[in-house]
Amino acid sequence: MFYPEESFAGANAEYFKVFPEAQAGLPLPPAKHYAIVTCMDARIDAFKAFGLSPGDAHVIRNAGGSARDAIRSLVISQQMLGTNAIYLVKHTKCGMATFENKDIHRAIAENLGVGAKHIDFLPFSDVEKAVKEDIAFLKGHELVHPRVKSHISGWIYDVDTGKVKRIV
Amino acid sequence: MFYPEESFAGANAEYFKVFPEAQAGLPLPPAKHYAIVTCMDARIDAFKAFGLSPGDAHVIRNAGGSARDAIRSLVISQQMLGTNAIYLVKHTKCGMATFENKDIHRAIAENLGVGAKHIDFLPFSDVEKAVKEDIAFLKGHELVHPRVKSHISGWIYDVDTGKVKRIV
Repeated sequence: MFYPEESFAGANAEYFKVFPEAQAGLPLPPAKHYAIVTCMDARIDAFKAFGLSPGDAHVIRNAGGSARDAIRSLVISQQMLGTNAIYLVKHTKCGMATFENKDIHRAIAENLGVGAKHIDFLPFSDVEKAVKEDIAFLKGHELVHPRVKSHISGWIYDVDTGKVKRIV
Repeated sequence: MFYPEESFAGANAEYFKVFPEAQAGLPLPPAKHYAIVTCMDARIDAFKAFGLSPGDAHVIRNAGGSARDAIRSLVISQQMLGTNAIYLVKHTKCGMATFENKDIHRAIAENLGVGAKHIDFLPFSDVEKAVKEDIAFLKGHELVHPRVKSHISGWIYDVDTGKVKRIV
Protein backbone atom coordinates (compact mmCIF):
# COMPACT_ATOMS: atom_id res chain seq x y z
CA MET A 1 0.00 0.00 0.00
CA PHE A 2 1.19 3.52 -0.76
CA TYR A 3 0.71 6.56 1.46
CA PRO A 4 1.24 9.69 -0.56
CA GLU A 5 1.87 12.59 1.80
CA GLU A 6 0.78 14.74 -1.16
CA SER A 7 -2.79 13.51 -0.78
CA PHE A 8 -2.86 14.67 2.86
CA ALA A 9 -1.75 18.11 1.67
CA GLY A 10 -4.21 17.78 -1.21
CA ALA A 11 -7.16 17.05 1.10
CA ASN A 12 -6.14 20.03 3.21
CA ALA A 13 -5.92 22.26 0.10
CA GLU A 14 -9.66 21.79 -0.44
CA TYR A 15 -10.10 23.31 3.01
CA PHE A 16 -7.67 26.21 3.09
CA LYS A 17 -8.86 27.45 -0.31
CA VAL A 18 -12.26 28.14 1.26
CA PHE A 19 -11.01 28.94 4.78
CA PRO A 20 -13.42 31.59 6.12
CA GLU A 21 -11.80 34.95 6.76
CA ALA A 22 -13.68 35.22 10.07
CA GLN A 23 -11.80 32.17 11.32
CA ALA A 24 -8.41 33.92 11.14
CA GLY A 25 -7.30 35.42 14.43
CA LEU A 26 -9.62 33.41 16.69
CA PRO A 27 -8.44 33.59 20.30
CA LEU A 28 -6.55 30.70 21.91
CA PRO A 29 -8.83 30.05 24.93
CA PRO A 30 -11.99 28.10 24.03
CA ALA A 31 -15.00 30.42 23.61
CA LYS A 32 -17.38 27.93 25.26
CA HIS A 33 -14.97 27.29 28.14
CA TYR A 34 -15.19 23.53 28.08
CA ALA A 35 -13.27 20.44 27.06
CA ILE A 36 -14.61 17.32 25.41
CA VAL A 37 -12.88 13.99 25.97
CA THR A 38 -13.81 11.35 23.42
CA CYS A 39 -12.46 8.33 21.57
CA MET A 40 -10.09 8.37 18.57
CA ASP A 41 -12.70 6.21 16.74
CA ALA A 42 -12.78 7.06 13.03
CA ARG A 43 -16.59 7.26 12.97
CA ILE A 44 -16.82 10.25 15.32
CA ASP A 45 -16.78 13.67 13.63
CA ALA A 46 -16.57 15.56 16.92
CA PHE A 47 -17.22 19.05 15.54
CA LYS A 48 -20.40 17.99 13.73
CA ALA A 49 -21.65 15.49 16.30
CA PHE A 50 -21.26 17.85 19.25
CA GLY A 51 -22.22 21.06 17.45
CA LEU A 52 -18.86 22.81 17.65
CA SER A 53 -17.58 25.77 15.66
CA PRO A 54 -13.86 26.51 15.40
CA GLY A 55 -12.69 28.17 18.61
CA ASP A 56 -15.43 26.70 20.81
CA ALA A 57 -13.91 23.88 22.88
CA HIS A 58 -10.86 21.73 23.50
CA VAL A 59 -11.22 18.32 21.87
CA ILE A 60 -9.16 15.59 23.53
CA ARG A 61 -9.23 12.19 21.83
CA ASN A 62 -7.53 8.89 22.63
CA ALA A 63 -8.21 5.17 22.45
CA GLY A 64 -11.42 4.66 24.44
CA GLY A 65 -11.95 8.29 25.39
CA SER A 66 -10.01 7.61 28.59
CA ALA A 67 -10.11 10.27 31.33
CA ARG A 68 -6.97 8.81 32.87
CA ASP A 69 -5.06 9.25 29.61
CA ALA A 70 -6.44 12.79 29.21
CA ILE A 71 -5.47 14.18 32.60
CA ARG A 72 -2.35 16.09 31.42
CA SER A 73 -4.38 17.81 28.71
CA LEU A 74 -7.31 18.55 31.06
CA VAL A 75 -5.04 20.17 33.66
CA ILE A 76 -3.50 22.42 30.98
CA SER A 77 -6.99 23.19 29.64
CA GLN A 78 -8.19 24.25 33.09
CA GLN A 79 -5.07 25.90 34.55
CA MET A 80 -3.75 27.72 31.48
CA LEU A 81 -6.78 28.17 29.23
CA GLY A 82 -9.68 28.65 31.62
CA THR A 83 -12.07 25.79 30.84
CA ASN A 84 -14.74 25.12 33.45
CA ALA A 85 -16.50 21.95 32.34
CA ILE A 86 -15.77 18.48 30.91
CA TYR A 87 -17.98 16.41 28.62
CA LEU A 88 -16.68 12.83 28.57
CA VAL A 89 -18.13 10.90 25.61
CA LYS A 90 -17.50 7.20 25.03
CA HIS A 91 -19.41 5.34 22.32
CA THR A 92 -21.12 2.16 21.15
CA LYS A 93 -19.16 -0.56 19.33
CA CYS A 94 -15.84 0.68 20.72
CA GLY A 95 -12.66 -1.16 19.76
CA MET A 96 -11.62 -1.10 23.43
CA ALA A 97 -14.30 -3.70 24.15
CA THR A 98 -12.90 -6.11 21.53
CA PHE A 99 -9.70 -7.10 23.34
CA GLU A 100 -8.14 -7.48 26.79
CA ASN A 101 -4.68 -6.43 27.95
CA LYS A 102 -3.43 -10.01 27.53
CA ASP A 103 -4.47 -9.96 23.85
CA ILE A 104 -2.58 -6.79 22.97
CA HIS A 105 0.40 -7.89 25.08
CA ARG A 106 0.48 -11.12 23.04
CA ALA A 107 0.12 -9.24 19.72
CA ILE A 108 3.01 -6.95 20.64
CA ALA A 109 5.19 -9.91 21.63
CA GLU A 110 4.38 -11.74 18.37
CA ASN A 111 4.54 -8.78 15.98
CA LEU A 112 7.31 -6.71 17.55
CA GLY A 113 9.20 -9.18 19.74
CA VAL A 114 8.82 -6.78 22.66
CA GLY A 115 7.51 -7.40 26.18
CA ALA A 116 4.82 -4.86 27.08
CA LYS A 117 3.07 -6.55 29.99
CA HIS A 118 3.81 -3.56 32.23
CA ILE A 119 1.55 -1.36 30.07
CA ASP A 120 -2.16 -1.04 30.84
CA PHE A 121 -3.84 -0.25 27.53
CA LEU A 122 -7.06 0.62 29.39
CA PRO A 123 -9.50 -1.68 27.57
CA PHE A 124 -13.03 -2.12 28.99
CA SER A 125 -15.89 -4.52 28.40
CA ASP A 126 -18.86 -2.50 29.70
CA VAL A 127 -18.99 1.00 28.21
CA GLU A 128 -21.58 2.36 30.65
CA LYS A 129 -19.50 1.15 33.61
CA ALA A 130 -16.40 2.65 31.97
CA VAL A 131 -18.11 6.05 31.69
CA LYS A 132 -19.12 5.94 35.36
CA GLU A 133 -15.60 4.94 36.45
CA ASP A 134 -14.03 7.74 34.41
CA ILE A 135 -16.41 10.35 35.87
CA ALA A 136 -15.64 9.12 39.39
CA PHE A 137 -11.92 9.28 38.54
CA LEU A 138 -12.21 12.92 37.40
CA LYS A 139 -14.39 14.02 40.34
CA GLY A 140 -11.93 12.46 42.75
CA HIS A 141 -8.75 13.74 41.10
CA GLU A 142 -6.70 16.31 43.03
CA LEU A 143 -5.55 17.99 39.79
CA VAL A 144 -9.07 18.62 38.46
CA HIS A 145 -10.09 22.13 39.50
CA PRO A 146 -12.88 22.27 42.13
CA ARG A 147 -14.80 24.78 39.95
CA VAL A 148 -14.93 22.09 37.22
CA LYS A 149 -16.03 19.18 39.42
CA SER A 150 -19.71 20.15 39.45
CA HIS A 151 -19.67 20.48 35.64
CA ILE A 152 -18.49 17.03 34.59
CA SER A 153 -20.89 14.82 32.67
CA GLY A 154 -20.56 11.40 31.05
CA TRP A 155 -22.21 10.31 27.80
CA ILE A 156 -22.38 7.50 25.25
CA TYR A 157 -22.45 8.33 21.54
CA ASP A 158 -24.21 5.85 19.24
CA VAL A 159 -22.03 5.48 16.13
CA ASP A 160 -25.00 4.14 14.14
CA THR A 161 -27.47 6.94 14.92
CA GLY A 162 -25.24 9.90 15.83
CA LYS A 163 -27.15 10.37 19.08
CA VAL A 164 -25.67 10.95 22.54
CA LYS A 165 -27.20 9.57 25.73
CA ARG A 166 -26.35 10.96 29.13
CA ILE A 167 -25.07 8.40 31.63
CA VAL A 168 -23.79 10.56 34.52
CA MET B 1 -21.53 30.72 34.63
CA PHE B 2 -24.02 27.99 33.83
CA TYR B 3 -23.32 24.81 31.87
CA PRO B 4 -26.57 23.25 30.77
CA GLU B 5 -25.96 19.64 29.83
CA GLU B 6 -29.22 19.97 27.89
CA SER B 7 -27.51 22.27 25.40
CA PHE B 8 -24.84 19.62 24.70
CA ALA B 9 -27.66 17.17 23.95
CA GLY B 10 -29.41 19.96 22.04
CA ALA B 11 -26.39 20.63 19.83
CA ASN B 12 -26.12 16.90 19.17
CA ALA B 13 -29.84 16.73 18.28
CA GLU B 14 -29.20 18.99 15.30
CA TYR B 15 -26.78 16.32 14.10
CA PHE B 16 -28.58 13.05 14.73
CA LYS B 17 -31.77 14.38 13.15
CA VAL B 18 -29.92 14.58 9.84
CA PHE B 19 -27.53 11.67 10.46
CA PRO B 20 -26.95 10.07 7.01
CA GLU B 21 -28.29 6.54 6.72
CA ALA B 22 -25.08 5.50 4.92
CA GLN B 23 -23.11 6.31 8.07
CA ALA B 24 -24.85 3.61 10.10
CA GLY B 25 -22.92 0.34 10.27
CA LEU B 26 -19.54 1.72 9.23
CA PRO B 27 -16.78 -0.75 10.11
CA LEU B 28 -14.56 -0.24 13.17
CA PRO B 29 -11.11 -0.27 11.46
CA PRO B 30 -10.27 3.04 9.72
CA ALA B 31 -10.94 2.85 5.97
CA LYS B 32 -7.84 4.92 5.13
CA HIS B 33 -5.64 2.88 7.50
CA TYR B 34 -3.98 5.82 9.19
CA ALA B 35 -3.97 7.77 12.42
CA ILE B 36 -3.70 11.51 12.86
CA VAL B 37 -2.16 12.96 16.02
CA THR B 38 -2.97 16.61 16.57
CA CYS B 39 -3.56 19.19 19.29
CA MET B 40 -6.75 19.61 21.36
CA ASP B 41 -6.76 23.28 20.22
CA ALA B 42 -10.32 24.55 19.79
CA ARG B 43 -9.54 26.12 16.40
CA ILE B 44 -8.77 22.82 14.65
CA ASP B 45 -11.76 21.11 13.00
CA ALA B 46 -9.79 17.95 12.18
CA PHE B 47 -12.37 16.35 9.88
CA LYS B 48 -12.71 19.45 7.71
CA ALA B 49 -9.08 20.56 7.84
CA PHE B 50 -7.67 17.15 6.93
CA GLY B 51 -10.41 16.10 4.51
CA LEU B 52 -11.81 13.21 6.55
CA SER B 53 -15.14 11.45 6.21
CA PRO B 54 -16.59 9.38 9.06
CA GLY B 55 -14.83 6.01 9.18
CA ASP B 56 -11.62 7.21 7.52
CA ALA B 57 -8.94 7.60 10.20
CA HIS B 58 -8.19 7.55 13.91
CA VAL B 59 -8.01 11.04 15.35
CA ILE B 60 -5.87 11.34 18.47
CA ARG B 61 -5.82 14.75 20.13
CA ASN B 62 -4.08 16.05 23.25
CA ALA B 63 -2.43 19.22 24.54
CA GLY B 64 0.28 20.02 21.99
CA GLY B 65 -0.37 17.06 19.70
CA SER B 66 2.22 15.11 21.67
CA ALA B 67 3.44 11.81 20.19
CA ARG B 68 4.68 10.73 23.61
CA ASP B 69 1.21 11.21 25.09
CA ALA B 70 -0.38 9.38 22.13
CA ILE B 71 1.71 6.20 22.22
CA ARG B 72 -0.89 4.00 23.97
CA SER B 73 -3.51 4.98 21.39
CA LEU B 74 -1.11 4.53 18.46
CA VAL B 75 -0.13 1.03 19.56
CA ILE B 76 -3.81 0.02 19.81
CA SER B 77 -4.47 1.65 16.43
CA GLN B 78 -1.65 -0.35 14.80
CA GLN B 79 -1.88 -3.68 16.64
CA MET B 80 -5.65 -4.07 16.93
CA LEU B 81 -7.06 -1.93 14.11
CA GLY B 82 -4.50 -2.20 11.33
CA THR B 83 -3.35 1.36 10.72
CA ASN B 84 -0.14 1.73 8.70
CA ALA B 85 0.71 5.43 8.79
CA ILE B 86 0.84 8.40 11.18
CA TYR B 87 0.30 12.06 10.35
CA LEU B 88 1.52 14.19 13.27
CA VAL B 89 0.15 17.74 13.03
CA LYS B 90 1.14 20.51 15.45
CA HIS B 91 0.07 24.10 14.77
CA THR B 92 0.88 27.79 14.91
CA LYS B 93 0.02 29.87 17.99
CA CYS B 94 -0.12 26.79 20.22
CA GLY B 95 -0.90 27.22 23.91
CA MET B 96 1.98 24.88 24.72
CA ALA B 97 4.40 27.64 23.70
CA THR B 98 2.87 30.13 26.17
CA PHE B 99 4.13 28.54 29.39
CA GLU B 100 6.88 26.41 30.88
CA ASN B 101 6.58 23.53 33.32
CA LYS B 102 7.50 25.85 36.21
CA ASP B 103 4.55 28.13 35.36
CA ILE B 104 1.93 25.37 35.42
CA HIS B 105 3.52 23.82 38.51
CA ARG B 106 3.16 27.21 40.22
CA ALA B 107 -0.45 27.63 39.01
CA ILE B 108 -1.36 24.19 40.37
CA ALA B 109 0.28 24.93 43.72
CA GLU B 110 -1.53 28.28 43.98
CA ASN B 111 -4.95 27.20 42.67
CA LEU B 112 -5.17 23.67 44.02
CA GLY B 113 -2.63 23.58 46.86
CA VAL B 114 -1.07 20.51 45.27
CA GLY B 115 2.56 19.77 44.40
CA ALA B 116 2.88 18.60 40.79
CA LYS B 117 6.56 19.18 40.08
CA HIS B 118 7.01 15.50 39.16
CA ILE B 119 4.70 15.94 36.14
CA ASP B 120 6.13 16.95 32.76
CA PHE B 121 3.31 18.76 30.97
CA LEU B 122 5.32 18.61 27.71
CA PRO B 123 5.33 22.31 26.78
CA PHE B 124 7.59 23.47 23.93
CA SER B 125 8.83 26.83 22.66
CA ASP B 126 9.77 25.99 19.06
CA VAL B 127 6.97 24.19 17.22
CA GLU B 128 9.11 23.10 14.25
CA LYS B 129 11.70 21.60 16.61
CA ALA B 130 8.87 19.92 18.57
CA VAL B 131 7.54 18.29 15.38
CA LYS B 132 11.01 16.98 14.51
CA GLU B 133 11.55 15.63 18.04
CA ASP B 134 8.18 13.86 18.01
CA ILE B 135 8.84 12.23 14.63
CA ALA B 136 12.26 11.05 15.86
CA PHE B 137 10.57 9.72 19.01
CA LEU B 138 8.04 7.72 16.95
CA LYS B 139 10.61 6.39 14.48
CA GLY B 140 12.81 5.23 17.36
CA HIS B 141 10.04 3.71 19.47
CA GLU B 142 10.07 -0.07 19.93
CA LEU B 143 6.26 -0.20 20.13
CA VAL B 144 5.70 1.56 16.79
CA HIS B 145 5.29 -1.14 14.13
CA PRO B 146 8.18 -1.33 11.60
CA ARG B 147 5.63 -1.26 8.72
CA VAL B 148 4.51 2.17 10.00
CA LYS B 149 7.95 3.72 10.47
CA SER B 150 8.43 4.60 6.79
CA HIS B 151 4.97 6.25 6.74
CA ILE B 152 5.31 8.83 9.50
CA SER B 153 5.20 12.50 8.56
CA GLY B 154 5.22 15.72 10.60
CA TRP B 155 3.28 18.87 9.77
CA ILE B 156 2.38 22.33 11.09
CA TYR B 157 -1.20 23.60 10.65
CA ASP B 158 -1.65 27.37 10.42
CA VAL B 159 -4.71 28.25 12.53
CA ASP B 160 -5.12 31.56 10.68
CA THR B 161 -5.11 30.19 7.12
CA GLY B 162 -6.14 26.53 7.55
CA LYS B 163 -3.08 25.41 5.61
CA VAL B 164 -0.71 22.57 6.55
CA LYS B 165 3.04 22.66 5.87
CA ARG B 166 5.15 19.54 5.85
CA ILE B 167 8.15 19.64 8.19
CA VAL B 168 9.38 16.03 8.18
